[in-house]
Amino acid sequence: MALLTRIRGPRDLDRLSPEQLDRLASEIRTFLVDAVSKTGGHLGPNLGVVELTIALHRVFESPKDKILWDTGHQSYVHKLLTGRQDFSKLKMKGGLSGYPARAESEHDFIENSHASTVLGWADGLAKANERLGRDDHVVAVIGDGALTGGMAWEALNNIADAKDRPLVIVVNDNERSYAPTIGGLANHLATLRTTDGYERFLARTKDILDRTPVVGKPLYETLHGAKKGLKDFIAPQGLFEDLGLKYVGPIDGHDIAAVESALQRAKRFNGPVIVHCLTEKGRGYQPALQDEADRFHAVGKIHPDTGLPIASSGADWTSVFADEMVALGKEREDIVAITAAMLQPVGLDKFAKAFPDRVYDVGIAEQHAAVSAAGLATGGLHPVVAVYATFLNRAFDQVLMDVALHDCGVTFVLDRAGVTGTDGASHNGMWDMSILQVVPNLRIAAPRDADQVRAQLREAVAVEDAPTVVRYSKGAVGPAVEAVSRVGGMDVLREPGTDRPDVLLVSIGALAPMCLEIADLLDKQGISTTVVDPRWVKPVDEAMAPLADRHRVVVTVEDNGRAGGVGSAISQALRDAGVDVPLRDFGIPQRFLDHASRGEILAEIGLTAPDIARQVTGLVSKLDGLHQTRVRPSGEAAEPRAEAAARTGKATEPVRD
Amino acid sequence: MALLTRIRGPRDLDRLSPEQLDRLASEIRTFLVDAVSKTGGHLGPNLGVVELTIALHRVFESPKDKILWDTGHQSYVHKLLTGRQDFSKLKMKGGLSGYPARAESEHDFIENSHASTVLGWADGLAKANERLGRDDHVVAVIGDGALTGGMAWEALNNIADAKDRPLVIVVNDNERSYAPTIGGLANHLATLRTTDGYERFLARTKDILDRTPVVGKPLYETLHGAKKGLKDFIAPQGLFEDLGLKYVGPIDGHDIAAVESALQRAKRFNGPVIVHCLTEKGRGYQPALQDEADRFHAVGKIHPDTGLPIASSGADWTSVFADEMVALGKEREDIVAITAAMLQPVGLDKFAKAFPDRVYDVGIAEQHAAVSAAGLATGGLHPVVAVYATFLNRAFDQVLMDVALHDCGVTFVLDRAGVTGTDGASHNGMWDMSILQVVPNLRIAAPRDADQVRAQLREAVAVEDAPTVVRYSKGAVGPAVEAVSRVGGMDVLREPGTDRPDVLLVSIGALAPMCLEIADLLDKQGISTTVVDPRWVKPVDEAMAPLADRHRVVVTVEDNGRAGGVGSAISQALRDAGVDVPLRDFGIPQRFLDHASRGEILAEIGLTAPDIARQVTGLVSKLDGLHQTRVRPSGEAAEPRAEAAARTGKATEPVRD
Repeated sequence: MALLTRIRGPRDLDRLSPEQLDRLASEIRTFLVDAVSKTGGHLGPNLGVVELTIALHRVFESPKDKILWDTGHQSYVHKLLTGRQDFSKLKMKGGLSGYPARAESEHDFIENSHASTVLGWADGLAKANERLGRDDHVVAVIGDGALTGGMAWEALNNIADAKDRPLVIVVNDNERSYAPTIGGLANHLATLRTTDGYERFLARTKDILDRTPVVGKPLYETLHGAKKGLKDFIAPQGLFEDLGLKYVGPIDGHDIAAVESALQRAKRFNGPVIVHCLTEKGRGYQPALQDEADRFHAVGKIHPDTGLPIASSGADWTSVFADEMVALGKEREDIVAITAAMLQPVGLDKFAKAFPDRVYDVGIAEQHAAVSAAGLATGGLHPVVAVYATFLNRAFDQVLMDVALHDCGVTFVLDRAGVTGTDGASHNGMWDMSILQVVPNLRIAAPRDADQVRAQLREAVAVEDAPTVVRYSKGAVGPAVEAVSRVGGMDVLREPGTDRPDVLLVSIGALAPMCLEIADLLDKQGISTTVVDPRWVKPVDEAMAPLADRHRVVVTVEDNGRAGGVGSAISQALRDAGVDVPLRDFGIPQRFLDHASRGEILAEIGLTAPDIARQVTGLVSKLDGLHQTRVRPSGEAAEPRAEAAARTGKATEPVRD
Repeated sequence: MALLTRIRGPRDLDRLSPEQLDRLASEIRTFLVDAVSKTGGHLGPNLGVVELTIALHRVFESPKDKILWDTGHQSYVHKLLTGRQDFSKLKMKGGLSGYPARAESEHDFIENSHASTVLGWADGLAKANERLGRDDHVVAVIGDGALTGGMAWEALNNIADAKDRPLVIVVNDNERSYAPTIGGLANHLATLRTTDGYERFLARTKDILDRTPVVGKPLYETLHGAKKGLKDFIAPQGLFEDLGLKYVGPIDGHDIAAVESALQRAKRFNGPVIVHCLTEKGRGYQPALQDEADRFHAVGKIHPDTGLPIASSGADWTSVFADEMVALGKEREDIVAITAAMLQPVGLDKFAKAFPDRVYDVGIAEQHAAVSAAGLATGGLHPVVAVYATFLNRAFDQVLMDVALHDCGVTFVLDRAGVTGTDGASHNGMWDMSILQVVPNLRIAAPRDADQVRAQLREAVAVEDAPTVVRYSKGAVGPAVEAVSRVGGMDVLREPGTDRPDVLLVSIGALAPMCLEIADLLDKQGISTTVVDPRWVKPVDEAMAPLADRHRVVVTVEDNGRAGGVGSAISQALRDAGVDVPLRDFGIPQRFLDHASRGEILAEIGLTAPDIARQVTGLVSKLDGLHQTRVRPSGEAAEPRAEAAARTGKATEPVRD
């Protein structure tokens, strides 16, 4: 790491010779494999952009010139070159973010980590430069996969419209987003590749792989194979120039000098220009290159030599869904699946293997996932759209106006719902149970364990005239939590042990074990508690209001933003029923959460059993106090709840207005 | 109308001769001008698709073959040809919808009336046909303007991927959506037009115009002028064939035989195919053709001969905003404006005239409107994004993850918020104040009158580190409502006249006059009421909870969906402050509303002063009853509130737990 450790900022790259730059690239690859093996992170994408990032920082003057990374998971090299070389706590509390982060560096601008946004940002920044007479450059780096997103198209259409507004778009084309890129655009890019530049790129592959320090075997065959099926030579400018965008390329993205030369040309061009760079995801790291599914897009802790995971993971929410989908697929011919470029992460790979004709990968295109699902449903099928919870935000209008308005039987499965942690603010799935509350007829299931995932998925796909949602957490699924009885469609998880119970605790989804713990803690304070899991959180079960009315306090606990969430919906349902029992709703505070582990975040926001039990105890004591004040002579202080209960051996009677 | 009245369904077109078809087209134009003049509606777009619609219904067998209309405002001719010729109550309660409507006809499928969705629907339906082995045809009709929306791109990318899945896409190219289409795509389409087909189209213009019954003057000059600036001939297949889509065109969309021939070819082609039709918005109606701004896209009631509006409209919300934007633009150089293809409808035309360099029309691309605004704000400007409230749903993720997460000072102005009425379910702006509640740091203003629009717009653009929203209704702005005092940042509109008031009535936005009326009605029942307008409804003013705590009941009234709306937010704020005063929240029920006038809908959903006053009276009486029951000997019935109040001369004392 002799060279890398001396790079304190981009300008330190200026004085390096071509040989030194190649050595620096090697050092960076070794660093990345070593560091990310220990922490987990986005390995494959960063191995693919080592040379590209070096070239970008040599040609442009960050931060005056703004280098913008789409999605941002490929910004590790950028971090290394801009003074951030301590990767020991990558994605951990207090450590580097896995994405660009304005708090970390003046070289970072966009930290949203949702795909396809960078061209829009770049268009806005370029317009601002034009308005304010600045000569700063704006450089947007976007993968070919992210170009399948509609936002990218909207932006290109606008960017192309201003012929003399400078803007450099680097298409980082590795023929895949998470997985291989699909669609007409991918085919078009493939056509562009059939040029001299691409031939040169192939010829260099063996050479470069041999020089990489990490195990390197030539990939020539593989890459050459990818060419088969391509059309004959066609003018490569094609689509982009049709739109009016200047096109430079294709460039071998692992040839620093070639990329620099192209970027210099683009920088001098006084208008929007596309620089089409061909790169290889997982470059120089054999275990990544051998992984056809996703080229080590994101890894947990791994052995650096073999790339095999260190921790063996138990059953997780995703795999429970994955297996049940295969079972459902066998039973019902009409069930089809849709993914937005994330077949494996959402667990649809098993379904795809079993029923290859019944799964549709639409690209990074959640809007299309939803609206084409409406079409499929209208055509007589039952689509299951599986996405990360946070990404459904992209399709809100389509869920509402296409799926729900047209009474379509479409099931949305939201993985990674609630606090997810290490990926930071934009990956927490804390919005879905709030914004989906407004969608008429839509029903939301929040299963609490593996059995409920299976059961509620089945209930969901049985609904043919309305959208259904099944949402669950990230990672390992907890132990089974059995119901002790049923009230309406709701599972009672714990009976209060008295006819006049104090607290109705409404447990949402995966928080059931925590809610049972809260009930135990309350019990020790002499507060009798019913724990109920509504299972379907929208609409609010009709049995909820009468049940609430038999308690003194209602407490809701959800792994979702508090604003407009399940607690709010239950509160409204109680008001509508004229049940004015005091209610307290616990959930995620409505702010953007920094990256940290899920446990650390839950502790920080007070979503833990002791925290909630303490607050509920306080509320019950306050109600007791009000009651005591009214029934005893004034001036006499109310006895603390716990002591009173201990003394009398039973809870004091409820007070209700 | 000898021919038209004999058309009961599409098959009645089969036996007509070419001459009869031309005569039918003339009759339809006459019918449209006559009918829409009386009711208002989308005149221009429908005059443009008369021949195209006739050809579609002759070539395809609806409803077995599915003819899908993007947005749907151009479906009047389709309605006329599928058994719906009573336009007397167009868009009125009980009359025909202004869009396709499944309840009206088996020939209608999509009724969302948000743009750019049709290709996604078509992709889903085509996939369903393939899965289920059906040979039905799917035909999607989309305007060139709607192709600027990202959803269209996502769909094209997917459609192009399946070379042997039949799907016909008719691009209805009139060089405009609402207004002239912008962007690289528009330029590309312009290039496609420079072919023989286009020349023929121009040549026919004079001829056809002369034959139309409605005043027709040749437009040859105008149309010919539109060609200037076009590039030399380029292979017309361009962009679409780059993606892998078969391209047929351009076709003169007013030549029935030519369109039929192209559609027949497309129908026989066993894969996705684009049929590029050139049409003229407002075709055959001189007043429309002379209106360069929007070609009579949508009109109110007009004189059929002159096209001039019959009712003169007073000041409306839009024009108040329009004028204040110009004033602000003069004061602040950094203010820029963004519209999504609706410069005039949202009132930015005045700003554009005053500051042509400071307004950006991004196309039908709300996502890009929001994300490019984030870029502009980061670059040092203050963008004002003006859209219809319902269309902001398209940009929810961008408002959240781009604008809010990055602390961008962007102001969103939401026109047509609340119940809008005649355009039906998809145009009501009943979602914004709910879904935006979840966005951290974002602030929402709901001005009650013209003065408040001006004041709150100024307050909004003064915020530089967070998104702000100003939302107001459709149509005429009501009378000024003066504040009598202030509590925190809130305006008190009416004092209760007692130290122990019963009801805190929270009035949101334009409903202030109605809330004052409610208070008067309650007053007559002996119920004392404070009326407060929070002005900024998010975040909830800190003075709200203490104010509520001085009342017995809190009532919120908003022109927004009830789920997760302002009432819910206030309810949560009160819970968080430990203020457990009973609250009732009035708003729009969370269901899709049929088209009718605003007044009819408000009456139907009970959002009227008498309805709300009656319910609040009931609630207060119930609280009185509980109180009476407790303080008087059991068995004695509680005295009705009104009588009791009348008898004692003052309200009974509040009861609170």
